[in-house]
Amino acid sequence: MKIEILTVGKPKASYVKDGLSEYLKRLKVHLPLSMKHVPDRSKRKNAEKVLEEEGKEILSTVGDEDFLVLLDVDGRLVDSVSFAAWVQKKLNETPKKLIFCVGGAYGVSEDVKRRANFLLSLSPMTFPHEMSLLILVEQLYRAVMINKGSAYHH
Amino acid sequence: MKIEILTVGKPKASYVKDGLSEYLKRLKVHLPLSMKHVPDRSKRKNAEKVLEEEGKEILSTVGDEDFLVLLDVDGRLVDSVSFAAWVQKKLNETPKKLIFCVGGAYGVSEDVKRRANFLLSLSPMTFPHEMSLLILVEQLYRAVMINKGSAYHH
Repeated sequence: MKIEILTVGKPKASYVKDGLSEYLKRLKVHLPLSMKHVPDRSKRKNAEKVLEEEGKEILSTVGDEDFLVLLDVDGRLVDSVSFAAWVQKKLNETPKKLIFCVGGAYGVSEDVKRRANFLLSLSPMTFPHEMSLLILVEQLYRAVMINKGSAYHH
Repeated sequence: MKIEILTVGKPKASYVKDGLSEYLKRLKVHLPLSMKHVPDRSKRKNAEKVLEEEGKEILSTVGDEDFLVLLDVDGRLVDSVSFAAWVQKKLNETPKKLIFCVGGAYGVSEDVKRRANFLLSLSPMTFPHEMSLLILVEQLYRAVMINKGSAYHH
């Protein structure tokens, strides 16, 4: 099973781009991971319209058999060890792709929430969406290290 | 009341330094905030000795009347709005300093945990200690924006 990280727009903050490229570099030797971006429409004024358009683009890239994990502050909280076990289990299963979707500045549409197979919360705290992406990638790297029994723990 | 962020060693990862300097720049016009570092002893092999020495240094910088918040994965989870209200309440109270302590690579000693007035968890997930520092500073900035009624929400 392949893993895809799906975001709305490419990250802009330089600290996010730096951290991301560091963790993606470390991850790519361990996981069949790719990044995909749908266009960021958040410059438009009407938030509802932004969510609707971005939502359509997100859903058009998700296949029927793909397993869609949506990052959502109100989703399920898990610790890193449980997350690692869960990722391993999913990698061993059959669906075509495991997709982690990080919404845009306004979040995602209700349609995307309904399509999601799992809502994952990184914290009850609200993080900038770009920071959530960085945290997600670090947690995937941590998951790989936990599953390998490595001493990475910093 | 002043706010101090107390860390073990200075951050090394360039993405953390970049993100931190961005948020500290934004924060300093709003909050009387300073950073303090105690020496990082984690290069030594004996983790217990590292924690003991770092713990002593941490405790020597904390005054009797200071309110010490320790970041701890097993601490209390709060959402950003509650955190903002809590920070505002603390700023209005009397203790000398509100100190947020982010431990080192091995965490902190039991003595530091016992001295802490509050254990704050950013997530049930384990984050690198440097990333926790970055998240904390963003949450402080978010708290200020929430308390000002600003539209910052990304």
